[in-house]
Amino acid sequence: MDIHDLTRQLQQDNGSKILMLVADGLGGLPQQPGGLTEVETANTPNLDELARKGINGGSIPVKPGISPGSGPGHLGLFGYDPVKYLIGRGALEATGIGFELTANDVAVRCNFCTLDADGNITDRRAQRISSEESTPLTAKLRDVSIAGVEVFVEPVKEHRFVVVFRGDGLGGNISDTDPQETGVPPLDPIAIDEPSQRTAHAAVEFLAQAGEILAGEAKANGLTLRGFAPKPVLPSYEEVYGLRAAAVAVYPMYKGLARLVGMQIVGEAQTLEEQAAVVEQYWDDFDFFFVHYKYTDSTGEDGNFDAKVQKTEHFDRVIPEFTKLNPTVTIVTGDHSTPSFLSSHSWHPVPTVIVAPACRTDACQKFGEQESLLGGLGMFEAKHLMSLALANAGRLAKYGA
Amino acid sequence: MDIHDLTRQLQQDNGSKILMLVADGLGGLPQQPGGLTEVETANTPNLDELARKGINGGSIPVKPGISPGSGPGHLGLFGYDPVKYLIGRGALEATGIGFELTANDVAVRCNFCTLDADGNITDRRAQRISSEESTPLTAKLRDVSIAGVEVFVEPVKEHRFVVVFRGDGLGGNISDTDPQETGVPPLDPIAIDEPSQRTAHAAVEFLAQAGEILAGEAKANGLTLRGFAPKPVLPSYEEVYGLRAAAVAVYPMYKGLARLVGMQIVGEAQTLEEQAAVVEQYWDDFDFFFVHYKYTDSTGEDGNFDAKVQKTEHFDRVIPEFTKLNPTVTIVTGDHSTPSFLSSHSWHPVPTVIVAPACRTDACQKFGEQESLLGGLGMFEAKHLMSLALANAGRLAKYGA
Repeated sequence: MDIHDLTRQLQQDNGSKILMLVADGLGGLPQQPGGLTEVETANTPNLDELARKGINGGSIPVKPGISPGSGPGHLGLFGYDPVKYLIGRGALEATGIGFELTANDVAVRCNFCTLDADGNITDRRAQRISSEESTPLTAKLRDVSIAGVEVFVEPVKEHRFVVVFRGDGLGGNISDTDPQETGVPPLDPIAIDEPSQRTAHAAVEFLAQAGEILAGEAKANGLTLRGFAPKPVLPSYEEVYGLRAAAVAVYPMYKGLARLVGMQIVGEAQTLEEQAAVVEQYWDDFDFFFVHYKYTDSTGEDGNFDAKVQKTEHFDRVIPEFTKLNPTVTIVTGDHSTPSFLSSHSWHPVPTVIVAPACRTDACQKFGEQESLLGGLGMFEAKHLMSLALANAGRLAKYGA
Repeated sequence: MDIHDLTRQLQQDNGSKILMLVADGLGGLPQQPGGLTEVETANTPNLDELARKGINGGSIPVKPGISPGSGPGHLGLFGYDPVKYLIGRGALEATGIGFELTANDVAVRCNFCTLDADGNITDRRAQRISSEESTPLTAKLRDVSIAGVEVFVEPVKEHRFVVVFRGDGLGGNISDTDPQETGVPPLDPIAIDEPSQRTAHAAVEFLAQAGEILAGEAKANGLTLRGFAPKPVLPSYEEVYGLRAAAVAVYPMYKGLARLVGMQIVGEAQTLEEQAAVVEQYWDDFDFFFVHYKYTDSTGEDGNFDAKVQKTEHFDRVIPEFTKLNPTVTIVTGDHSTPSFLSSHSWHPVPTVIVAPACRTDACQKFGEQESLLGGLGMFEAKHLMSLALANAGRLAKYGA
């Protein structure tokens, strides 16, 4: 039994509003032992006020020790067990560029590569061809035509692009063609189950036609296919929580992840200030708002401690633009930590606060990693956050008599 | 899906070293309310230094309230869900005396007992016959001969011994013959499934021949069989973690448990100081070292608070002999608590510290039960410790994109 089996039967609508502010990669580490993290270094009066008014703790993104990508990180926050619900690589890549997958699609991550005269790979990334060079090539590949299967080709960045096969009954269980080494030719795409035979045939046909189209190219005269994946099947927010949910994100990846759980993408905001304005604009139309802020993650990924501090302070400054709307429940969290010290996503629990009338405030006086250890939420797996949000919103009935 | 499904796919080798120091039964209780535990009473400058440098918390051996034996206690620390992976009683008893089980074995815990002239049990433990008297009897029982089945008989202690049946296709699902009362005869061993029929026949034959061999004995003229169990099937450290693992233990039980998960037993150390020398000797040959220290448990079992304090101080004194090797990750923990106050294993969380460059240090200044409540690990189930160790060692790739 999973969490949704409970929320499905207990959900009730009382008109309350839940606001979830996600600062990507929010948690961090000190640069040296005994120092402060990025969040602790930042001047964050508004987050500190939420910490004083709310209940605090550390969100474990997946399980202790597991560092998630954006997919499992957000699924956890959305209340979907990220170990149970997998988003295939191809589907995530398509989601990341804003391609809206349908139930008839199989998405594939593709690399341009360089082949020698014998057809052996000499560079698995086509000499890291620039986006300026590769984007016209993906456009040319749209000339591929396969009977009974619609094909979409979309650029991602540099040597990376996405192919989506659309048709009835296409399975997604097909082996990668990237041999993961040079000096050998790409592998054939092989169907691993019966329903994937048609998809494998389409892939073979795609590769044949694409090979002719690319034959004269100096760098990108070949390609490999990896991570074949259908659209993941996730129950919707409406169904599992009874929430009309809106997502206010800037980057396609997060819009895409929100769309997978049935959130409606609203507005075209490009800054956090504009995101706040969008939330205000749509305030009466939804019960739940997911707001995504990217830059605490990207600065952490860059290993730029000071920049992450500044982005955290920016995030903090805009918070009153959201809280002035008086949501019943306000949550601030992150999908994972991205310590500048590691320049990567990490497993460390993410400081998290829930503010609501019945949240049972704790002793925390500031928002941050150390202080959150005094918090009433303790260390909890992210997948439990939505149940806590619903409870604090008065949206969960008693379980059992 | 369990933890190993994640570690199997995410494991990566970066040459780092993980050292796990297990003080058996480490956690304790104060002798009176408001007092200090054994660990808190002990002078432990080296553990305190680790607590200051590391991240601390309390390891729940199995689930809250569950007091484990050595088997589940260690399986949890090794990252094997102790509720999922069971080691049958017979297999654990054989493991405990250093008997190396094979896939063709069924091990049984045996008791000598005393029978009256009618064959009814008058003493289920053969008047607690001494090991000096019982060991020659187990030697005599090696004369039993069963067609197609090899039989091993090994003394344990006093009235207890182990029988191992070895042969092709022997099932391990056979009822106990100990009726758990006196005044009645031993029960027959009954096969509970088809593959156990052969084993049950071997057991019947063993009991018949053993009965004749023991017929003239005053105390031990009978025996009972309990806890029939095959060798447990556990995936190896190599497979689930990609770790070449070594175990440095003094007692057969802990060597046996380590062997069950594929660790290699190295050295013949008899003291903790010698164990440190063995770890140093094999430092380059393994990625992971499990070091077991017994005496914090045995003194706790004896209810000897002062002796447990002393053994804790001994454990502390030798720690620099291990940490001087500069492991990437150092862990100090215990398989369960053994409070002198209870003279037994207990369910209480075990103070635990992980020291590593990216561990995210907390406010703990000392190593111990109360202080660990300030720690960043919180209260966690022991089975998550290995994922945290691997993450801190940089040995887990990102989960999902």
